[in-house]
Amino acid sequence: MKKFAIGVDIGGTNTAIGIVDEGGNVLVKGGIDTPQHGDAVRYAKELTAAVKEMAKNLKLANPDAEILGMGLGAPNGNYYSGTIEYAPNLSFKGIVHIIDLLKAELPEYKYLALTNDANAAAIGEMIYGGAKGMKNFVMYTLGTGVGSGVVVNGDLVYGHDGFAGECGHTTLIPGGRLCGCGALGHLEAYCSAPGMKRTAFELMAKYNAVDSLLADKSFIELSSKMIYDAAVKGDKIALEVFELTGKYLGQGMADTVHHLSPEAIFLFGGPTAAGDLIFKPAKASLEEHLLPIFKNKIKVLPSELNAGDAAIVGASALVWKEIEK
Amino acid sequence: MKKFAIGVDIGGTNTAIGIVDEGGNVLVKGGIDTPQHGDAVRYAKELTAAVKEMAKNLKLANPDAEILGMGLGAPNGNYYSGTIEYAPNLSFKGIVHIIDLLKAELPEYKYLALTNDANAAAIGEMIYGGAKGMKNFVMYTLGTGVGSGVVVNGDLVYGHDGFAGECGHTTLIPGGRLCGCGALGHLEAYCSAPGMKRTAFELMAKYNAVDSLLADKSFIELSSKMIYDAAVKGDKIALEVFELTGKYLGQGMADTVHHLSPEAIFLFGGPTAAGDLIFKPAKASLEEHLLPIFKNKIKVLPSELNAGDAAIVGASALVWKEIEK
Repeated sequence: MKKFAIGVDIGGTNTAIGIVDEGGNVLVKGGIDTPQHGDAVRYAKELTAAVKEMAKNLKLANPDAEILGMGLGAPNGNYYSGTIEYAPNLSFKGIVHIIDLLKAELPEYKYLALTNDANAAAIGEMIYGGAKGMKNFVMYTLGTGVGSGVVVNGDLVYGHDGFAGECGHTTLIPGGRLCGCGALGHLEAYCSAPGMKRTAFELMAKYNAVDSLLADKSFIELSSKMIYDAAVKGDKIALEVFELTGKYLGQGMADTVHHLSPEAIFLFGGPTAAGDLIFKPAKASLEEHLLPIFKNKIKVLPSELNAGDAAIVGASALVWKEIEK
Repeated sequence: MKKFAIGVDIGGTNTAIGIVDEGGNVLVKGGIDTPQHGDAVRYAKELTAAVKEMAKNLKLANPDAEILGMGLGAPNGNYYSGTIEYAPNLSFKGIVHIIDLLKAELPEYKYLALTNDANAAAIGEMIYGGAKGMKNFVMYTLGTGVGSGVVVNGDLVYGHDGFAGECGHTTLIPGGRLCGCGALGHLEAYCSAPGMKRTAFELMAKYNAVDSLLADKSFIELSSKMIYDAAVKGDKIALEVFELTGKYLGQGMADTVHHLSPEAIFLFGGPTAAGDLIFKPAKASLEEHLLPIFKNKIKVLPSELNAGDAAIVGASALVWKEIEK
């Protein structure tokens, strides 16, 4: 028997689905629209239909395939209760008991588990990626927001209520930038892709940088990819954006180290594709903020998950982790 | 057989020793000087002699007493390796293998364990105090410095290298006050007893507060106890010191919650004796910095350990925790 796990990534507009082998390879890919109708019962049926169709296709190609379970990553996904709770970008209202709904539809799957996308990515890194064999590490996912997953003694930290690992909402600058969550000065407001855009606009204002390659873009137009392209061409504003983003990130990572003393911090997501442009200032800033006992000890590493299907692969890793328990 | 554990608190000048029962009561107390001679082998022999003498006295009074082991709390005490490493306030140089030395002297004790004082306090709170039955909590110890102990899934978090739980060195104010560790803006520089004094001096300077009850004290003279006494008398500077200290502390606690989502944060140490003066602004500031999913969920509680012997009692709790494993 060849063993497989299904990974589901529930995003604001699309739900991506993949059937993943024990090595983290996605054999069958699919997806459905994440509904805007807010009806979770209907959604569970739609998701089940898509999954069953994909499972059928897998078995046609691999008659000895066995699917052991399904892992889901969703915003505000709660591992303990199997619920999605007040997710700001989904149409479901209040608390949705997604795992219970899916258990009713898919009784043949013994292992069904849910967490948020960043936690799923951390488990993916541990099962398939660069954190294999590590017992204590943290993963930061940089994108539209900043998520994180914390692993202690080989297990993901869910905390008292299932929502641990929100390092993107630690305070970097007291009274600083407005964060999407409503608080001020959170890391996410500086180190996410929109945070980098905000830094670029601050810097253009500061230097009156009419000659910057970014100066002809509106606030809506400017993307972190444009900042990267400009930095590669030597644009001073763009280069300083990466320098500052790394500096902010290093300060936040130092707070993480002082809490948890991890072996490594993994960085995942669009902005990390810039490599040294962000890793170098991030590492320097981390070291600057650390207690002497932690200096030159903590690895800062790029995620080894494939960016294209990391969310699916991470969610599927929940299944192997459940089986381990 | 009545069961006992020995707790040892290694401080800069004194080493306090206690024999503690399963309820956290100290039956026999003693101590020796923490040596200034830097000779760890000699110190282990001195400590052993004192412990043996105390154990003899215990057995005279309680013939059915059984001592199961010894727990030690020391600055930079490493649980994994049983070593005290580069402790700034002790005369030992480099890395001292204190557990190995004591094992050789006290082969009759099956359980010998070491950690730092704040971690020991957290274990004490879990075994004897207000955190009984809690699986996820954090303890902040406010004193000359700010230490912390992190408990996840019922176990203390030691991290990759044994040094996790240094929340006192998270960055509150980028580029802010010089911390004892050499970095800038760390929580310890604001929320420790000396941090409160620094806040008082800043405020007197800001308001030119010649009429404050604190205005006749030099920087060396002023203590956090004096600030408390002045606050009780309604002194505006002293009241604002507590207000600001709570505000700083709340910001730091929010960072802890975003990492770990604990059920509660316990506060221990001198400044917490001020009760609402510090708890009220700390709680308000915590809430202000939190993501909505964490709001009005996290308890902020005073430690239930007896301040006088908490360090001994906490260290002794290491023994019961070892037996549990």
